Amino acid sequence: MKTMNPSLPLYLKVARSLEGQIQQGAFAVGDQVPSVRQLALLHRVSISTVLQAYFWLENKGWIEAKAKSGFYVRTPVQSLKPEPAYRSVESRPTAVTVGELMLEVIQAGPAAKISFSAASPSPDRLPMHKLNSIIRRISRQDPSHSVRYSFPPGSLALRKQIAKRSLTFGCGFLPEEITITCGAMEALNLCLRTIGKPGDVIATESPTYFSILQAIESLGMKAVEIPTHYRTGMDLDVLEHAITKHSVRGCIAITNCHNPLGFILSDERKKALVDLLARHDVPLIEDDVYGDLAFAPVRPRIAKSFDRKGLVLACGSFSKTVSPGLRIGWVQSERYHTKIEELKLITSIASPSMSEAVMAMFLESGGYDRSLRQMRAMFEQQVRSVSQAVSKYFPEGTRVSRPEGGYVLWIELPRGTDSVALFRAAIKEGISISPGPIFSASGKFRNCIRLNCGMKWSDELDRAILKLGRLI
Amino acid sequence: MKTMNPSLPLYLKVARSLEGQIQQGAFAVGDQVPSVRQLALLHRVSISTVLQAYFWLENKGWIEAKAKSGFYVRTPVQSLKPEPAYRSVESRPTAVTVGELMLEVIQAGPAAKISFSAASPSPDRLPMHKLNSIIRRISRQDPSHSVRYSFPPGSLALRKQIAKRSLTFGCGFLPEEITITCGAMEALNLCLRTIGKPGDVIATESPTYFSILQAIESLGMKAVEIPTHYRTGMDLDVLEHAITKHSVRGCIAITNCHNPLGFILSDERKKALVDLLARHDVPLIEDDVYGDLAFAPVRPRIAKSFDRKGLVLACGSFSKTVSPGLRIGWVQSERYHTKIEELKLITSIASPSMSEAVMAMFLESGGYDRSLRQMRAMFEQQVRSVSQAVSKYFPEGTRVSRPEGGYVLWIELPRGTDSVALFRAAIKEGISISPGPIFSASGKFRNCIRLNCGMKWSDELDRAILKLGRLI
Repeated sequence: MKTMNPSLPLYLKVARSLEGQIQQGAFAVGDQVPSVRQLALLHRVSISTVLQAYFWLENKGWIEAKAKSGFYVRTPVQSLKPEPAYRSVESRPTAVTVGELMLEVIQAGPAAKISFSAASPSPDRLPMHKLNSIIRRISRQDPSHSVRYSFPPGSLALRKQIAKRSLTFGCGFLPEEITITCGAMEALNLCLRTIGKPGDVIATESPTYFSILQAIESLGMKAVEIPTHYRTGMDLDVLEHAITKHSVRGCIAITNCHNPLGFILSDERKKALVDLLARHDVPLIEDDVYGDLAFAPVRPRIAKSFDRKGLVLACGSFSKTVSPGLRIGWVQSERYHTKIEELKLITSIASPSMSEAVMAMFLESGGYDRSLRQMRAMFEQQVRSVSQAVSKYFPEGTRVSRPEGGYVLWIELPRGTDSVALFRAAIKEGISISPGPIFSASGKFRNCIRLNCGMKWSDELDRAILKLGRLI
Repeated sequence: MKTMNPSLPLYLKVARSLEGQIQQGAFAVGDQVPSVRQLALLHRVSISTVLQAYFWLENKGWIEAKAKSGFYVRTPVQSLKPEPAYRSVESRPTAVTVGELMLEVIQAGPAAKISFSAASPSPDRLPMHKLNSIIRRISRQDPSHSVRYSFPPGSLALRKQIAKRSLTFGCGFLPEEITITCGAMEALNLCLRTIGKPGDVIATESPTYFSILQAIESLGMKAVEIPTHYRTGMDLDVLEHAITKHSVRGCIAITNCHNPLGFILSDERKKALVDLLARHDVPLIEDDVYGDLAFAPVRPRIAKSFDRKGLVLACGSFSKTVSPGLRIGWVQSERYHTKIEELKLITSIASPSMSEAVMAMFLESGGYDRSLRQMRAMFEQQVRSVSQAVSKYFPEGTRVSRPEGGYVLWIELPRGTDSVALFRAAIKEGISISPGPIFSASGKFRNCIRLNCGMKWSDELDRAILKLGRLI
């Protein structure tokens, strides 16, 4: 049995202990595990604690409930392919050259029968009915929301809710430090334009979310790609070297549930990143759109929480957790706040006022937190299902990431595989994927793909992954 | 009597004829005008035509109905101050320097008790209840709108409706040429970024809507201000000279119900502008956010309708006519379409999906057209009321524009008046106005102000204008 972290909740200790026994073969597939009452006695904990532990194990796929009979060890999970390989290689600042391929991928997505390409949950995974009931309530109770101009910084009610939530990620934002934006992508653009100008060099993770690279390119800036480990993030030595060598103007990082790699930077790594940048007075644009979807029971901190110099611009969004259609993101910063507000005003003037009101009420009512709890479990399950299928159907030499949250999977295909050719072949079969090169300014990761696991697992998805495996 | 334009509708001929008689004193204040039946016989037109004429005269403030007694000439309208002065002076390309003042004005607006500063109707002037009933209907009938990702180019249903409406402004857009944006301001930014790059020179009207100037500045471009006549628009000779002298990369114009001057460019002037730019292969970004609010019975064409080379990028919005909170604008172009779509994607990814659905249904149901008819009459009345009060309370030497649509008034104060000082003094009295210099890249129009007439006329507004008059 693994050594337990003493700060773990009780139910997790119970669950992990049984998980260890199953892993070591103490219980075989089909075996009944101890009854709830037995286990409660054994560990001297309450019935509800054991139930919680069993639900956790069920969610993780170790056991399954059979009606009126108890819990049983389920068919063993496919042993997963190894994690991606990692090589730290220095790059030079470069113009981003993968714009056309990115457009091709995005435009192909909606038409595909099975879309593994966009990093987005299918609508049935989102709190649609709850949102609609809030929409109708606001429409009746305060109809003027539909016609109001919500000038920057945006709805105070919403900014108060975000400020309150910032405690969960280790910060204590003030509402007046926050600007509401049309999604996090607008926030990232405003941040880039606030800290830099055309010709400037921005350090990015590699691989990273492709629209970040395109935004850098469209603003006339250059990206210097910092090799990024699938668990520990950017290579800080290479980053420091790049900063001194290329006079880097700013850095962008996705610190939690990385897109596409899936890691959550440890607190130590977050602090080290912030400290390194602070030593060189380089601002960090932190993209935390997936942080609320960490699988672990405790919401991870953001790098901003280690910021002592006001150099971190924290960006978030509800597009990944509530609805991409609301177009509600936000950015918090101290010293850059005025400039961001000014840019927001002349970029899109305001954010959608009804969406702001809906989101504020969803947060205030506690509906968001309730919904998150379900989503986290749901996405963990979905990511596991896709990982398993990939491990089952993809050829020898494939490597698969171990996401700690969110819903994307990064897959390294056997050497020599051309993910762009695979993308085009898959589209003909009605399946869309995101090929690796769009995640790199210079078209690296030719043999990698990203799969979205935002859809409910089904036989259809299983067949789609089988088909992908055959195409490779 | 004025010579009549033979293409005028019958009721307008009748109305204008009586208007002329009142102006010339044939009917004095308090006189009863001919009965509907008498006038119908006199002009050999139908009763309903005369009724239409009388409503028009009533709207224009010439006559008023008294219950069960007929129509009477009302207290004479204040004779208006003369129109703004005009001098055509050449400018050089310049960095835009009025950003701070603009922010000060915009931030002061919402706190002021009486806001004449933003060009926006008060919410009670907008079709709030109709919108909310559509919101609730969509929320019940198709709840998935609230959680959909609406990738560029945006909702097809909405693009179809805009394509259909484009016939009313002399065009025949195809849905696939249109991109939905987060308001027209995003559309203008995308257009600027599509046609130009940092360092490029953009020709603008002078005065013009201040956010256009700020957008140019924030993108690292320069503005060359083309003197703009209060009725006939940009001085095309100066524009042509600027194009050859400064290698102008693009031109932006507000062709209908100009902000801040209020004119509608005649078809001849629109065509001349498009032809001139076409000769030099310079793209025109056309901002038509107010075109649907022209007071005349026929919707004016847009310059795009004269475009033969695909050089005009037409931008519109429903922020001025339906709700600024929806954040729905659009841009249509042929040769620039792909680039615009790509930029939209990496700037804000998508537009708010619920707003798109609401706007599509509002257009489809005919509700938009019904609402427009009311709004045009309402805003014409409001603009007239403010013009009258200004003419009554402002000192000798004041000049006032004659808007042909929309709801802003451009006022030239006596020489030597400092509109920035006036703005600051007025804010202390709880009244916000827009001082002239923010409408110019180089801080011209020091003695001018713009007043928003988007609010229902009231004694309170009358007193506010009296107070402004005293402050001057």
